[in-house]
Amino acid sequence: MNERLSDRPNGDAALAIICGAGSLPFALADAAASRGRRVVLFALRGWADPKRVAAYPHHWTWMGQFGRFMRIAESEGCRDVAFIGTVTRPSLWNIRPDLRVMRLMPQLVRLYRGGDDHLQSGIGRLIEQHGFRLLGPKDIAPELTMPAGPLGSRTPAERDQADIRRGLALLNATSPFDIGQAVVVAENQVLAVEGPEGTDAALARVAELRRNGRIRSLMGTGVLIKAAKLGQDHRIDLPTIGPQTVEGAAAAGLAGIAVVAGTTMIAEPERIASAADRAKLFVVGVDSGQPAVP
Amino acid sequence: MNERLSDRPNGDAALAIICGAGSLPFALADAAASRGRRVVLFALRGWADPKRVAAYPHHWTWMGQFGRFMRIAESEGCRDVAFIGTVTRPSLWNIRPDLRVMRLMPQLVRLYRGGDDHLQSGIGRLIEQHGFRLLGPKDIAPELTMPAGPLGSRTPAERDQADIRRGLALLNATSPFDIGQAVVVAENQVLAVEGPEGTDAALARVAELRRNGRIRSLMGTGVLIKAAKLGQDHRIDLPTIGPQTVEGAAAAGLAGIAVVAGTTMIAEPERIASAADRAKLFVVGVDSGQPAVP
Repeated sequence: MNERLSDRPNGDAALAIICGAGSLPFALADAAASRGRRVVLFALRGWADPKRVAAYPHHWTWMGQFGRFMRIAESEGCRDVAFIGTVTRPSLWNIRPDLRVMRLMPQLVRLYRGGDDHLQSGIGRLIEQHGFRLLGPKDIAPELTMPAGPLGSRTPAERDQADIRRGLALLNATSPFDIGQAVVVAENQVLAVEGPEGTDAALARVAELRRNGRIRSLMGTGVLIKAAKLGQDHRIDLPTIGPQTVEGAAAAGLAGIAVVAGTTMIAEPERIASAADRAKLFVVGVDSGQPAVP
Repeated sequence: MNERLSDRPNGDAALAIICGAGSLPFALADAAASRGRRVVLFALRGWADPKRVAAYPHHWTWMGQFGRFMRIAESEGCRDVAFIGTVTRPSLWNIRPDLRVMRLMPQLVRLYRGGDDHLQSGIGRLIEQHGFRLLGPKDIAPELTMPAGPLGSRTPAERDQADIRRGLALLNATSPFDIGQAVVVAENQVLAVEGPEGTDAALARVAELRRNGRIRSLMGTGVLIKAAKLGQDHRIDLPTIGPQTVEGAAAAGLAGIAVVAGTTMIAEPERIASAADRAKLFVVGVDSGQPAVP
């Protein structure tokens, strides 16, 4: 462990991709490979999709096997590390700590007391302390982040832009409390603030409130607004949308989705655009905390 | 309509109580009657409990029958009006506007665009514009509001007090956005921010997150924190807890409930205290925005 991996020359370094759920890990692997990089997937058991993982050089790992990860990553010649894909905050029971992690326990327990951010940026620091370089998906493949402006053919109306502004201001206010990264606002009324249940569940809640007549605004009004938390480490856990987010927003009777351009990951942009057009929703990349564009 | 009811002498004025759901309307009616006041209930169809309403002088009314309310309240000699009991934000389809309300429509539509607060304080202004005096439950029966300190035998531990402080700070930050009046915080992690679904549903969500292993803290940790919104009209729609809140908090695996003393209504304090002791939860009245007492 004394030789720092970062002292090695960069040219032959492979990229270790620690993979959670969804299709983003594979989009990132493909994007890195297309740039001539060798990639090695570290697939998290219970999260990464086994069928798709099989198509890449890979190692299966439990959450918490940090010693094992470092050993294999070193022998594979990995210097850079990226985290990508959905991993909800793990229950302590789902973590299989190895010896290295046991030694780090006091540090990890401190990280664990607090919101997601705290935990995740701590994991980032830990990785770098052990001689790896942590890269964000954006550093590797900027095309995986949301561009400014609409995906698909619809754009937010003036009423929607007011909801987007209110949503961004609310996310700004809750950011220090390290909650979720999404809110739903319809005609100025806040319909949901995402907690640990995640965006899909928050949208399902709005759909249920509509069914129960607890929302005054009509179907086809309201916006899902997502933004990274202030000070969040953009290399880990950026907010993400995919085609299923569009379907959830449609089921919740919303007018569209607004995410902060450049700091939101998008899985399968073409499928998002076609799902949005089919559902008659807008999906737009906006400036953070600024009046909604375009 | 030209004679202002507020010009009448106060002595013979009856109290009109507009009743939503739950037991609080009857507690308020009893408290007013025990002070020698004549009370007339205006029971909201779909909300007020018909069995209990029958025991008092009453008139059934639909939401929105403001002209009818004023006519009957005048003929009953009511000068003071109180709103009490649960009424979730009504769907427009559940309102039966009468002629008076139709004339006020442009004003009401403006009120309707915005959160609950906006709507409710607007209704308060409307009532006063028509010559009534709007009283808060606290003006009539201070014993129906939460006292400082614990109900029941348990008190918050130091860890719980930290969660209470964080919850109050979060409610303070979201208050300008006119969202809910409750949050759940466990070991510094925010587990839920209440939206239009209400406190009981937010607690049920936390219970489900626990069942799904999405919450890291152990059973018996975490606090439901409730506070009136800043600038909220304390005469209308104060946050409320009752025995079912204690049951919901217990099912969510929390350590207790903290509400702001003096501005939270309590239905059946003895039943709350015994439910809390049975479930081994604390229920405590705290200072708003201040370190948790006692």
